[in-house]
Amino acid sequence: MFPKDFLVGGTHCGIAKKKDKKDMALFYSKRPAVAAAMFTANLVKAAPVLVSAGHLDKSAHIRAVVANSGCANACTGSRGKQDAEEMCRIVAEQAGVKAAEVLVASTGVIGRNLPMARLPKGIRALWNTVAAGRNDSRAAAEAIMTTDTFAKTAARTINADGSEITVWGCVKGSGMIHPDLKPHATMLGFILTDAVIGRKELDAALRHAVGASFNCVTVDGDTSTNDSVIVLANGAAGNAPLKKGKTPYAVFSSALDAVCLDLARMIATDGEGATHLIEIEVRQASNDRDAKKIAAVVATSPLVKTAIFGKDANWGRIIAAVGRAGVTINPSLIDIYLGDIMVARHGMGTDFSESKALKVLEQKDIKISIDLNMGKGQAKYYTCDYSIDYIKINANYRT
Amino acid sequence: MFPKDFLVGGTHCGIAKKKDKKDMALFYSKRPAVAAAMFTANLVKAAPVLVSAGHLDKSAHIRAVVANSGCANACTGSRGKQDAEEMCRIVAEQAGVKAAEVLVASTGVIGRNLPMARLPKGIRALWNTVAAGRNDSRAAAEAIMTTDTFAKTAARTINADGSEITVWGCVKGSGMIHPDLKPHATMLGFILTDAVIGRKELDAALRHAVGASFNCVTVDGDTSTNDSVIVLANGAAGNAPLKKGKTPYAVFSSALDAVCLDLARMIATDGEGATHLIEIEVRQASNDRDAKKIAAVVATSPLVKTAIFGKDANWGRIIAAVGRAGVTINPSLIDIYLGDIMVARHGMGTDFSESKALKVLEQKDIKISIDLNMGKGQAKYYTCDYSIDYIKINANYRT
Repeated sequence: MFPKDFLVGGTHCGIAKKKDKKDMALFYSKRPAVAAAMFTANLVKAAPVLVSAGHLDKSAHIRAVVANSGCANACTGSRGKQDAEEMCRIVAEQAGVKAAEVLVASTGVIGRNLPMARLPKGIRALWNTVAAGRNDSRAAAEAIMTTDTFAKTAARTINADGSEITVWGCVKGSGMIHPDLKPHATMLGFILTDAVIGRKELDAALRHAVGASFNCVTVDGDTSTNDSVIVLANGAAGNAPLKKGKTPYAVFSSALDAVCLDLARMIATDGEGATHLIEIEVRQASNDRDAKKIAAVVATSPLVKTAIFGKDANWGRIIAAVGRAGVTINPSLIDIYLGDIMVARHGMGTDFSESKALKVLEQKDIKISIDLNMGKGQAKYYTCDYSIDYIKINANYRT
Repeated sequence: MFPKDFLVGGTHCGIAKKKDKKDMALFYSKRPAVAAAMFTANLVKAAPVLVSAGHLDKSAHIRAVVANSGCANACTGSRGKQDAEEMCRIVAEQAGVKAAEVLVASTGVIGRNLPMARLPKGIRALWNTVAAGRNDSRAAAEAIMTTDTFAKTAARTINADGSEITVWGCVKGSGMIHPDLKPHATMLGFILTDAVIGRKELDAALRHAVGASFNCVTVDGDTSTNDSVIVLANGAAGNAPLKKGKTPYAVFSSALDAVCLDLARMIATDGEGATHLIEIEVRQASNDRDAKKIAAVVATSPLVKTAIFGKDANWGRIIAAVGRAGVTINPSLIDIYLGDIMVARHGMGTDFSESKALKVLEQKDIKISIDLNMGKGQAKYYTCDYSIDYIKINANYRT
């Protein structure tokens, strides 16, 4: 499943230390594509974020996205911006398009400059492979990985009034993960679709999808300087333009939601050192916002995350996190479930079976449900446990 | 250095599993003492917090504080409150005072009931030792420890217009540490002084001291259900009553500040699995509140805490945390220091010596300074690194 008229690939360009680690990805559309993007809300924004936002403002259509791992190009001042612009320019020159029609994204160590001397050769070689029609989506997904342990891609194909539309995406992200993406958000996500859709509609669909996926995933609570989600829609599917309020738009929007959620869950599954994917569902809150706030606090609680690593049904740490979320709650109304097991009722422990709880905690995917019994608000958050490997990975990342 | 007319002690009462682990502390004043206290702002409040707050409202003077480790008596409903009241009643009966003149505090696992059958005998034995005049402040400090690795006490003696006043305090806290203490906050802190001082003045002095000490310390960002700081002033020093605006009050207030800060730093030093005490100073912020908000976010960033464990001068993680603090900043004005070494200037890396930075990071106590270069606001926060032992301790705490 791959959208029509896109060509993508990845290669080793000399940024990553290891020669067999791909570090440069290229996403190219044979046709001018409508684009929407969300970037990090962190006030410290990396150069590629600033450059891409500028290009999006300037250009009605986007033709390519170039993305590197191994260097975040963040906190690099005006030179950093020049380097990001240069990456776009090299691609534009090869593709015969304008530099402002190319977007750029980076991930890796903050505060270092890109090794620009090595880039032109590598990017040109990558262009030549892609332009020759060698479409390698796996190589693209691998090239953006940092501490990720597997390449993350997802796709859906839908039918819109007879036209087949495909939505494909890849994402990276394992640490410094707590995306807070604002319209115009270091996870990097690249989504390609051959749908015919206007910019406004694409933007609305992206916001909706991100709100319930990338903005609900956390590994460490640390919002990155480089988070970017970019979607390109090149129209190759030939469907009637997707309009809000019509069924084909809704179907497309759902497919985009599904692709983003698949990718977000993969980020949590592959969180640094993770041994469990944890899904936290808050139900019956006063409103959805309160529910999301509580879910985020539980999802980032080191005590909850280490308890899950330890396969410890320590619901006291969960309710303590709920209580400090800054949301009005009534402790004596709260019910907590691990999987299907009710471990706390009305704010107090139930006489649950520790051995049954252990069985839940021995699964790879664990669901924690918190019922506030106050209203109709609800939210889900995706995270992972904190393991000994989490500490090892992060104590030794830069040096 | 110990204030006059207080008797304190600690014993094993049958709550802790290990027989040689003291689990019950008693703080007794021979005279009616003026009391001030601050309890957790977590909306899930443990029974002893609710009971102590009620006793403080009812009683003009307090005679004793009884505190246990090994069981938090939190999320225990009405039975929990009865048990906390019963602890006060047993002490009151022995001491010949009213139950409402006794405060109570607990720390340990959430969601379990106290083993009340064992308590009367243990508390009475403790009372008998204390009443016999065996003053054992180390035993009291040990009895409130959970995952703490050392007993934490601090003291100052001052001279107030010829009268010698002593302020002594002990504290416990190693995990679930991010106190958010509100007037009338599982760190437990008990401060005793023989000063003559009114309740209003004592309350003001405590709020001031806590604001720059316990409310600026974090281990894991998890605010507990049981945090309590209690100060008793029994007047045995015989000084003229301390009045705000006068020098002796200021000297007393400074001594209380110093005792609280000493104890707060000890909490960070003894954070679960900690290998470093980290002091984070934010300077030249727009205002003190912004400075404190930023310091708190940096202090709770898992990526900053693991970098320090790895002795990695990874200032990019520090500036990324600053940028997500929800405070208006200008990234290109930010300077960052590790100890005396400027590692970032105007938001970009300096060409600092990695070997000199490593020397700073090999110290036990590490200072991170962040200059926002915007205004006159400042704040300090105290935390510790995240080590492999942190995960081990917390993956195996309850079971």
